[in-house]
Amino acid sequence: MSLSMYKITVPAFIRGFSILSSLIDKAEAFAAEKKIDPAILFNARLAPDMLPFSGQIQRVSDTSKGVVARLTTIEAPRFPDDEADFSQLRDRIAKTVAFLESVDTSALDGSESKKVTLKFGKMEVTLSGEDYILKFVLPNFYFHVTTAQNILRHNGVPVGKLDYIGALS
Amino acid sequence: MSLSMYKITVPAFIRGFSILSSLIDKAEAFAAEKKIDPAILFNARLAPDMLPFSGQIQRVSDTSKGVVARLTTIEAPRFPDDEADFSQLRDRIAKTVAFLESVDTSALDGSESKKVTLKFGKMEVTLSGEDYILKFVLPNFYFHVTTAQNILRHNGVPVGKLDYIGALS
Repeated sequence: MSLSMYKITVPAFIRGFSILSSLIDKAEAFAAEKKIDPAILFNARLAPDMLPFSGQIQRVSDTSKGVVARLTTIEAPRFPDDEADFSQLRDRIAKTVAFLESVDTSALDGSESKKVTLKFGKMEVTLSGEDYILKFVLPNFYFHVTTAQNILRHNGVPVGKLDYIGALS
Repeated sequence: MSLSMYKITVPAFIRGFSILSSLIDKAEAFAAEKKIDPAILFNARLAPDMLPFSGQIQRVSDTSKGVVARLTTIEAPRFPDDEADFSQLRDRIAKTVAFLESVDTSALDGSESKKVTLKFGKMEVTLSGEDYILKFVLPNFYFHVTTAQNILRHNGVPVGKLDYIGALS
């Protein structure tokens, strides 16, 4: 049972989506309790030039399915980022998780050394599959899960560290 | 060059501290430019019941050195969380990184199946070394790095996603 490219990514992603689903539950419950339009939390952000809550979920979705697309020959589904409410965000999560669950545990075998090219505007960088996961994907994935949680917490939704960590046993 | 418990933790931690150091540089430069007391950013937080910027760095330090303490027989240094300014936070980072750099790349070998018990108030959970890293440590580590960045960005410090990701090549 040694570590593998699959083990350090896909199960962690599925776990992250379960945590994001719980955050959406809490956001909706808070909006209902305080008689706040849920769209306010859906569109809330921490800085004017940062993505809102909805955008954080979209980027978590793209980051996770992009791993499969980049490290295997499997084609990942494309989503147009047109979710307009929490219910549609739940659908996005469900579709992403269904895709991740369809990936065989051996699909990423050998991808440690596969070359992955990332583009950021005019910048282009090529990494090994392993560096792509360890230096880019995992930090990025948790950045967006954390920022989704921070946005809610900043707006008074009662979510704490244990909600972010999720069930451990 | 297969994945290992060391490879998915210690180098990522050292990388994270380099990113946190750059964040501190940017926070200090912003405070100087805007003639703001640096203590305001040092103590800034996103919600009244969340840790301030300084506390995020302290938790990143504890999370990373705790891995070595829990998965090996090496004793990790203890820090009393008494940092009072950015300069002392830099020292905390330097001491943590020096400790992490002293850890041999083989020190975590075989720790995948080591039992690790975590306590949260009255709750206690025992995980394998592997689950401890994948379900608890990595999410937790990036939570605090991200929240440190979010705190600065929320306060107008010009830090963006590329600052968080850091150099990739």
